[in-house]
Amino acid sequence: MPTRLPKLPNTVRGKDYLETRDWTDQEIERLLKTSSDLKKAFKAGRPTRYLPDKTVFLFFFDKSTRTRNSFEAGATQLGAHAHFISAETSQAAHGESPKDMGIILSSYGHAIAIRHDLVPGEGNSYMRAVAEHATVPVYNMQCDIDHPFQTLADLMTMREEFGRSLRGRRIAVTWAYAPSYAKPMSVPQGLITLMPRFGLDVVLAHPPEWTLMKEPMAFAQAQAKAHGTSFEVTDDMDEACRGADIVYAKSWGIEELFHKPEEALKLSTRYKNWLCDERRMKLAKKTAIYMHCLPADRNHEVTDAVLDGPQSRVFPEAENRLHTCKAVMALTM
Amino acid sequence: MPTRLPKLPNTVRGKDYLETRDWTDQEIERLLKTSSDLKKAFKAGRPTRYLPDKTVFLFFFDKSTRTRNSFEAGATQLGAHAHFISAETSQAAHGESPKDMGIILSSYGHAIAIRHDLVPGEGNSYMRAVAEHATVPVYNMQCDIDHPFQTLADLMTMREEFGRSLRGRRIAVTWAYAPSYAKPMSVPQGLITLMPRFGLDVVLAHPPEWTLMKEPMAFAQAQAKAHGTSFEVTDDMDEACRGADIVYAKSWGIEELFHKPEEALKLSTRYKNWLCDERRMKLAKKTAIYMHCLPADRNHEVTDAVLDGPQSRVFPEAENRLHTCKAVMALTM
Amino acid sequence: MPTRLPKLPNTVRGKDYLETRDWTDQEIERLLKTSSDLKKAFKAGRPTRYLPDKTVFLFFFDKSTRTRNSFEAGATQLGAHAHFISAETSQAAHGESPKDMGIILSSYGHAIAIRHDLVPGEGNSYMRAVAEHATVPVYNMQCDIDHPFQTLADLMTMREEFGRSLRGRRIAVTWAYAPSYAKPMSVPQGLITLMPRFGLDVVLAHPPEWTLMKEPMAFAQAQAKAHGTSFEVTDDMDEACRGADIVYAKSWGIEELFHKPEEALKLSTRYKNWLCDERRMKLAKKTAIYMHCLPADRNHEVTDAVLDGPQSRVFPEAENRLHTCKAVMALTM
Repeated sequence: MPTRLPKLPNTVRGKDYLETRDWTDQEIERLLKTSSDLKKAFKAGRPTRYLPDKTVFLFFFDKSTRTRNSFEAGATQLGAHAHFISAETSQAAHGESPKDMGIILSSYGHAIAIRHDLVPGEGNSYMRAVAEHATVPVYNMQCDIDHPFQTLADLMTMREEFGRSLRGRRIAVTWAYAPSYAKPMSVPQGLITLMPRFGLDVVLAHPPEWTLMKEPMAFAQAQAKAHGTSFEVTDDMDEACRGADIVYAKSWGIEELFHKPEEALKLSTRYKNWLCDERRMKLAKKTAIYMHCLPADRNHEVTDAVLDGPQSRVFPEAENRLHTCKAVMALTM
Repeated sequence: MPTRLPKLPNTVRGKDYLETRDWTDQEIERLLKTSSDLKKAFKAGRPTRYLPDKTVFLFFFDKSTRTRNSFEAGATQLGAHAHFISAETSQAAHGESPKDMGIILSSYGHAIAIRHDLVPGEGNSYMRAVAEHATVPVYNMQCDIDHPFQTLADLMTMREEFGRSLRGRRIAVTWAYAPSYAKPMSVPQGLITLMPRFGLDVVLAHPPEWTLMKEPMAFAQAQAKAHGTSFEVTDDMDEACRGADIVYAKSWGIEELFHKPEEALKLSTRYKNWLCDERRMKLAKKTAIYMHCLPADRNHEVTDAVLDGPQSRVFPEAENRLHTCKAVMALTM
Repeated sequence: MPTRLPKLPNTVRGKDYLETRDWTDQEIERLLKTSSDLKKAFKAGRPTRYLPDKTVFLFFFDKSTRTRNSFEAGATQLGAHAHFISAETSQAAHGESPKDMGIILSSYGHAIAIRHDLVPGEGNSYMRAVAEHATVPVYNMQCDIDHPFQTLADLMTMREEFGRSLRGRRIAVTWAYAPSYAKPMSVPQGLITLMPRFGLDVVLAHPPEWTLMKEPMAFAQAQAKAHGTSFEVTDDMDEACRGADIVYAKSWGIEELFHKPEEALKLSTRYKNWLCDERRMKLAKKTAIYMHCLPADRNHEVTDAVLDGPQSRVFPEAENRLHTCKAVMALTM
């Protein structure tokens, strides 16, 4: 069967995938093309053993469902094997340094993927420290700054919905209320930094206290300018939804309060009305879609009617996580 | 090598395996035949790659040894890969709904298996909720109501012992004392609902407080009637063992007291004499065998002399877990 | 591709690998040769599918990074699959006996590997109990007495450094201070029992309280005598390092105090100067190397300057864990 496997280019072989900004537009186009090809092959039941007997290490400091399962099933579909490593069962807590990890796992396998997202200032720098010493590609399965596998799947989903050109489409990236726990800022930051590069006008909405990190904000503005798209910020959720093609409403935490979750939670209760419901979806375009990286706090972030309704694309979005992660692995490992 | 792989029928392709009652006698015969073929192939070292590069998700709300390892090794023997997912390391606790799980995992892989057995009223309904939304087969790796992989392996073991026809054979399904923790009711319920369909006369024994759920009891009676077999209930362990061909003695909990384990435990100390020992095995037929799904509370549920003795079939029974789970996967995935 | 796979001898097929002393010198030479061949094949990207669709169970009572990942990636490279089983997620705590485990896992797969190292008197005897009932090879992934996969990788690394003959080379196996936790005694014990058999002169250094177990000490002495090598013991770290070719400085616990870690820790603070630093490395030969099984307590057991310096071989040593464990699996499974 491997004789029929279409050949992949090796232009990004060995490259880390830590933030989408590290990749050129052309390289990301390559990822999207390969994702789409791998999706078609999977639906058709065609084998895609690009990485026979190779190993990818999945290192989770935090819990996961979609990410772990998409990587592990994806590795299998490529003929490879993924190690699911939770922080509790490894020696990371016994003094394993990122340097040791990078060097040693590079000698055992073919890629290292890390999720480390709950503490602002820690996750990304940890991954970069591993990558500095690794001789195999290092992947960011979500950090404090970016969630590049999620936003790649999001971009793929938007293209499937609206066609290849997204120019002139408007995405509302908006905070929403959630009582459960302080969620990372990586998804909204990943969206505002990636989407302007692919033609989307971005409007970011949040209550005054929920500002994103300075650096991604500056990068988003610069990208919008460079690509002739717009980037606006508002503290009015309705305004953000008005005329949007995509409503991406989800909760995140306050950078300074990640260590004081009760305080942030208390503050957030003032904004319980930041909920994506049918009224707000009506402010958007008729053809608008609702997106969320999941898991969603049902009836807090978003009503069941929206999440399970005809405008929701959360399941195709989740599905595309599988094919985008396979594309990154197949092209870089 | 795949050229020589005997073809499997696709009559149950895509079918869930949640309770044995959902499967016709003929379908279960098919499972037993395939289990037996797969066992022979394994012993002979013949490859059985029926599911190359496919993925089965194993979702455990509760601990496991046999079930996890039989599924994971079984998947490997079929060329597939199993994800071992413990509740602690996934986002099930972060608001992942059964609907989300069913839809998303269906898009990533090829089957979803779930163990959720410790709370009466919860496990089976959770699985059925996942199955409602899944487009791939969903398997019950033990719930509050049934343990269909265990009882299928049990039936296979009985046939290996007594031959294809079990008509006229008598099985004693009896409660036994265990000080460790409240064990699910799924094994005795699974036995009394399945065995009458395959010719066995069933006698169920337990102290008055340890009644099984109403619905499985009614189903067992109806099956016995329909198949011309008998189903008796007694509170005398000796009586149950007398003349039995199979003594299946194990502990289970009290439906109303799963949330008050100390109370149930206290009550159970009155019945410490509900122990399967050599005296009781002598009440059974000379050719009788002892069965238990394991792990057994040694010298509480059963004496070492019986468990390790010549009448014990607990190890072949455990071994058959491997081949029956492969049969279900190979036929439905 | 399997047509080109060089054939392996079957002289140790089915053999347990529990302590290096159970294997003859010639058998260990066979392991080293196969390790080296598998390393070359891996570096060259040649497939080594010696164990297609086979299963090895990895049972961890204690945490691990290198061991788990080298076995799991190694199994993949051999075409097999490894189950990572942590004590928390299995029923070992629910009354699963070593006998049940040995018999049942033997019927599901092809080898059983166990880590059980933190309690003197427990780990090795547990493994031997499993092995007594298993019909497949049982591997010691570190116990209270030996760490035979580590020392095999160490021996391989020494040969890569100094050539095939190690006769006349001197290894200092020395205790070092670590504030973190009581580490097993298996590595120093494994070194002193194996290295004299392969021509090395061994000097063991530790503070008076940190004696190793009696039995491995006696075995080491006997081996040195039988092989015409020397085995000395000192309580002076400088003396041990003087003239050494290899400095293997690491911490371990006090046999009698594993259950009273605070007491041992308190005692150890008297010996904070048992640190491997550049001054001590200068006492050794100019061509001397530093070794450690990792993870190291940086700047307690060893300074960054030594661990990251030109004499350190800790990363090749870790890398060789992959190829030695593959050799054991490929030859015995």
